[in-house]
Amino acid sequence: MKRTAAYRLDDIAKRLGGSVVGNADVIISQVATLESAQAHQIAFLANSKYRAQLDSTKAGAVILSAADAEATSLPRIVCNNPYAYFAKLSALLNPPPQAVAGIHASAVVGEGVVIHAGVQIDANVVIGEGAQIGANSIIMAGCSIGAGVVIGENALLYPRVVVYHDCVLGNNLIAHSGVVIGADGFGIAMEEGRWLKIPQIGRVVIGDDVEIGANTTIDRGALDDTVIEDDVKLDNQIQIAHNVRIGAHTAIAGCVGIAGSASIGRYCRIGGSAGILGHLQIADYVEVSSFTLVGKSIKERGSYCGIYPFSTTQAWRKNAAQVRHLDELADRVRLLEQQIENLKK
Amino acid sequence: MKRTAAYRLDDIAKRLGGSVVGNADVIISQVATLESAQAHQIAFLANSKYRAQLDSTKAGAVILSAADAEATSLPRIVCNNPYAYFAKLSALLNPPPQAVAGIHASAVVGEGVVIHAGVQIDANVVIGEGAQIGANSIIMAGCSIGAGVVIGENALLYPRVVVYHDCVLGNNLIAHSGVVIGADGFGIAMEEGRWLKIPQIGRVVIGDDVEIGANTTIDRGALDDTVIEDDVKLDNQIQIAHNVRIGAHTAIAGCVGIAGSASIGRYCRIGGSAGILGHLQIADYVEVSSFTLVGKSIKERGSYCGIYPFSTTQAWRKNAAQVRHLDELADRVRLLEQQIENLKK
Amino acid sequence: MKRTAAYRLDDIAKRLGGSVVGNADVIISQVATLESAQAHQIAFLANSKYRAQLDSTKAGAVILSAADAEATSLPRIVCNNPYAYFAKLSALLNPPPQAVAGIHASAVVGEGVVIHAGVQIDANVVIGEGAQIGANSIIMAGCSIGAGVVIGENALLYPRVVVYHDCVLGNNLIAHSGVVIGADGFGIAMEEGRWLKIPQIGRVVIGDDVEIGANTTIDRGALDDTVIEDDVKLDNQIQIAHNVRIGAHTAIAGCVGIAGSASIGRYCRIGGSAGILGHLQIADYVEVSSFTLVGKSIKERGSYCGIYPFSTTQAWRKNAAQVRHLDELADRVRLLEQQIENLKK
Repeated sequence: MKRTAAYRLDDIAKRLGGSVVGNADVIISQVATLESAQAHQIAFLANSKYRAQLDSTKAGAVILSAADAEATSLPRIVCNNPYAYFAKLSALLNPPPQAVAGIHASAVVGEGVVIHAGVQIDANVVIGEGAQIGANSIIMAGCSIGAGVVIGENALLYPRVVVYHDCVLGNNLIAHSGVVIGADGFGIAMEEGRWLKIPQIGRVVIGDDVEIGANTTIDRGALDDTVIEDDVKLDNQIQIAHNVRIGAHTAIAGCVGIAGSASIGRYCRIGGSAGILGHLQIADYVEVSSFTLVGKSIKERGSYCGIYPFSTTQAWRKNAAQVRHLDELADRVRLLEQQIENLKK
Repeated sequence: MKRTAAYRLDDIAKRLGGSVVGNADVIISQVATLESAQAHQIAFLANSKYRAQLDSTKAGAVILSAADAEATSLPRIVCNNPYAYFAKLSALLNPPPQAVAGIHASAVVGEGVVIHAGVQIDANVVIGEGAQIGANSIIMAGCSIGAGVVIGENALLYPRVVVYHDCVLGNNLIAHSGVVIGADGFGIAMEEGRWLKIPQIGRVVIGDDVEIGANTTIDRGALDDTVIEDDVKLDNQIQIAHNVRIGAHTAIAGCVGIAGSASIGRYCRIGGSAGILGHLQIADYVEVSSFTLVGKSIKERGSYCGIYPFSTTQAWRKNAAQVRHLDELADRVRLLEQQIENLKK
Repeated sequence: MKRTAAYRLDDIAKRLGGSVVGNADVIISQVATLESAQAHQIAFLANSKYRAQLDSTKAGAVILSAADAEATSLPRIVCNNPYAYFAKLSALLNPPPQAVAGIHASAVVGEGVVIHAGVQIDANVVIGEGAQIGANSIIMAGCSIGAGVVIGENALLYPRVVVYHDCVLGNNLIAHSGVVIGADGFGIAMEEGRWLKIPQIGRVVIGDDVEIGANTTIDRGALDDTVIEDDVKLDNQIQIAHNVRIGAHTAIAGCVGIAGSASIGRYCRIGGSAGILGHLQIADYVEVSSFTLVGKSIKERGSYCGIYPFSTTQAWRKNAAQVRHLDELADRVRLLEQQIENLKK
């Protein structure tokens, strides 16, 4: 897809702030890494330890912090937060898809559906009765929107997202392909040797400015709602069970599983493939490492980890064999300590 | 979606059993939690340790066991298994979708397809030649049913389920969106530095009363079939490889991976993100904790676990460093024991 | 689906090599396991330890290696690599789907799309403008192919695969249902307490002969491309983050997560539910066990593992409690060693 926007370096600074050092006339049409940038591209240095890359870059200009401002003679924009600056400049050069108002002839729109101004509905979309689609939203090919769903403004649903009935999605939502919002939570009760299904009658309620990665699933609540607060960012293939609450500004990496009724604070960061057991409370500003199972509530902000260290399989075999006897080993050490005390006497 | 059913408390007991204590005339139209219930709603107490919640609930009535029967003065239904009772009452108040017979004009139905009475086929469904859909089943928007597939009665396939050719699905199946049944198992053979694909010619055969969560995948067998027995309950994002067998009444939580040809018993419960290696046998009535990898067969019923305990990252760093030297630590303890013995002499 | 091909044993050897021992006239129409094979079927023995199964098999013929050639009196094909031979014979008897050229009336094909000879486009497929589909490829029902995508020859996309704009897919690709290629990587920058989205402007570039399992996701690059080289085999529900590179002939089992910018070598094998952290380098010919998190680069070929050993929950509880005190235990052992030294003096 063609991108034709291009800006002079001083135009960029006028729009996004920062101060220009060097040739302000250089024309920038794209962002790139320091390694691969060409003359019409701007790169960024967010971490001083990569300063050496400035020497060899072919970028037309660079974004960097005051601390690194003199580390290159290239035309540059000096700013407080180069990574955030780069994000904003890239968004200027690579604007997100804009809705082209209209409903594709193959879309199937139920009775009483309210579609606000500027909405784009693509091929094979199915919208259940009474749903509402906010202004300027884009619903791409093959999405299925259940009855009574409410979607905010400027939402972007990529192809084949499914939203079950009655869920509420905020403004500026981005949901990638394969996302399923509002499927039944895993609620079953055993009676006389067979499972009974517990109807899942809550909803999923999602705030504004949320992004949801490909094939992530968010189950509807059993009785009350599952809640995703504003500015939550979810990567791919995350599983969020019924009645989970995720606090605003929390970011969760791929393949994480969060069990039912867990409540996660604001500004948390959860690493890839981590897990959080059900009914736990996690405080604000908690970081959980990749591959860590959080098995009890975390009441203090901070960084938490529970990864088994990897090694060669040969070394692992020896050490893992001892893991199975750790309690016994501790007993033996305790006994040795007593014996030493006795010998000393 | 409107729900209009409402019942007197004694009507409920007439239908579902249990005995009413207190005002039998109270009208109940919905279930709720003790915390959020209103006057027209009924809550339940399944565990005596939450008894304190009875004091503050605004529920119109409560379901509880004989042991807790006197812990409240609210109108109540006393029964043996409050959680199962609640499940049945909720199903009465919130009945599952009922098929509205008919085939949407946009559905594409292949030659020789047999669609039994009362079946609902929604928009953009594609059904391959020779498939059979049992009476009163619902196939929601955008599902793809392969050639020769057989689906039982009263099945409910939510939008965008895919079933590959020749698979057999039982009665009362619920399959949530994004489920893929019958994709090829991961069968490859190395020859002269390149992979050869091994055709996957088995099927997936699923019994009655099975529920499958969103984006769960069940691969077809390599030669023989992959088998899911009756009343198995699968949560979201589970991966079941080729030739796995899952025994009746087993329940598996989200994100579990089960490798090829593993055989899991009846009435097992597998926690979220657990894993089971290939070709293993798991006995009946086995419980596996979340995040546990089962690396060899389990022959005895019971509860099994293999979770690395989490802590602050600082504490983890110190302890994990020792995990890499456990075998050496055990050697040092052994040496100390010998030295003590020598000193004692 | 009917399969009617059948071959005499000597015909098979003429096509695929190997030498026939015993009755060369036996007619074979299908492959099967030693346990379930019937008279018209051929089974294989790839591992001498299963030799005992030869005694009871009802197979019409067997594929085995020279070492096992005299372990049965059944008609047999003796070859170097029985498993690879079986793969090739099964492919002969069970050929993959062949494209039936044509575009279903319900497909929506954008402007400037180039569809080469022999391509099959099924119902409800949507293809964005300027995409190219190589000769003899099959795009099954409900796939969504973004603008500018290039797909090679003989590709097979099962129902409901999504490919985002501008991605490049090689020849002979097999992508199973629910696969999402080219969704945005997880790129966010924090500024003043809110997340900024970093546009993901790279592509996914996939080589020839790649297979991708159901519901696997491969994110597009942030700036440069995400790259999957030739003959890579990916199982189901794998998550591949932005800017990952996977070397040729590497095979990855289900539920693996690979974080951003990780680079995996050629001929690697990654076990199910393993994880690889971002920005790591993994050498060629590395094997990683199931459930292992690779937390730093691996520079030497070999086998690596990091699984917490499972046990009964009772035993686990005792041992895991000690894991939290391992550093302290090591200190106590060190102290004991000093004390012993002192006592000896």
